Amino acid sequence: MLEEKEISQAVISRLPRYYRYLQDLIEEGTERISSRELSSRMHVTASQIRQDFNNFGGFGQQGYGYNVQYLHDEIGQILGLDQEHSMVLIGAGNLGQALVGYMNFKRRGFVFKAAFDCKPELVGKKVGQVVIRPMSELTTLIDREKIEIAVLTVPKGAAVEIANQLSGTCIRAIWNFAHVDLPVPERIQVENVHLSDSLMKLSYQIRSDDMNESTKQ
Amino acid sequence: MLEEKEISQAVISRLPRYYRYLQDLIEEGTERISSRELSSRMHVTASQIRQDFNNFGGFGQQGYGYNVQYLHDEIGQILGLDQEHSMVLIGAGNLGQALVGYMNFKRRGFVFKAAFDCKPELVGKKVGQVVIRPMSELTTLIDREKIEIAVLTVPKGAAVEIANQLSGTCIRAIWNFAHVDLPVPERIQVENVHLSDSLMKLSYQIRSDDMNESTKQ
Repeated sequence: MLEEKEISQAVISRLPRYYRYLQDLIEEGTERISSRELSSRMHVTASQIRQDFNNFGGFGQQGYGYNVQYLHDEIGQILGLDQEHSMVLIGAGNLGQALVGYMNFKRRGFVFKAAFDCKPELVGKKVGQVVIRPMSELTTLIDREKIEIAVLTVPKGAAVEIANQLSGTCIRAIWNFAHVDLPVPERIQVENVHLSDSLMKLSYQIRSDDMNESTKQ
Repeated sequence: MLEEKEISQAVISRLPRYYRYLQDLIEEGTERISSRELSSRMHVTASQIRQDFNNFGGFGQQGYGYNVQYLHDEIGQILGLDQEHSMVLIGAGNLGQALVGYMNFKRRGFVFKAAFDCKPELVGKKVGQVVIRPMSELTTLIDREKIEIAVLTVPKGAAVEIANQLSGTCIRAIWNFAHVDLPVPERIQVENVHLSDSLMKLSYQIRSDDMNESTKQ
């Protein structure tokens, strides 16, 4: 394991993208890649890549390029992908079902152990490989199975109450798709996914294009 | 409409979040808010907020705080949310169905006009309010209905071929959930959503916490 300094959030948020590209390279059979090639492929500057990797000791020798498998494994280790992460799904609607069915998660070691829903008619049914359980079993199952990550795909109104329940368990992190800030103790990591934000960015870009067009005319 | 300078991508990517918080404030009946209050609510510094808003002319008077509705509407206008955006769904699986069912999109003017899927058994069925059509009708419908945004929730393997088809239409933007870079002309905006990236960030944080714990002991 490499020694780590304090790494900036910006660098950390770029690591998953490197990891994905390196996985693609492995699948294509590429063994070695220069920062310049990686740069043109990922549309970031080669100096950005070198700077990012220098945070973790560099990973390569000047002039020889990077060993793709080694770089992939090291970044995977930094991201904690060298161990399995157990998850539960809370809210077995369409989005929840889509997430459970996502093979990429399992491939990277994120494994759903159970699903929960408040609708009695869903209890006992299966989502992917897991059976949907009643909400009353949530906290005991999390503690018994030492679940790390709760995936929260419930409506805004229900999310805060569930976050309060989760706060009393051994859960380490919440992947939150509900549109509300969750009141949890600091020891629980929260990653909010706001799908509509990226849609709004698209509409910003469409409008910008329109304005540029009308300026040109 | 405010006059605009070149705005940095970082500022633009923060606008949707401001917009969401302002929408919550409106729903709560708050009419006026200081940058300090907004700052503590959003967990960003008040100076960051003032700097961001200065890009668009400021929106407020020193000492009086911001008029919430005005600020909401102005940011909405900058984001292009003052007009309706028509969309089609391509790929009517679980994720696609979840997106079509998302009321927040409709509320913000993003309206699905049609859905497409390559599976014959899905054609003719409904997703939310829209009927699923065969892929053969995709390009003609987009051009006829002047669709702006294509939402792409198909497997990686199918995405590139569909992107090629879309390149020949009047489509303005692709909201891409497939894990692959799309080869489209520059005039088409692409916003990639990589759900697993935020999951990897969570596992990074879990591992960081573990390391800090073991250092303390």
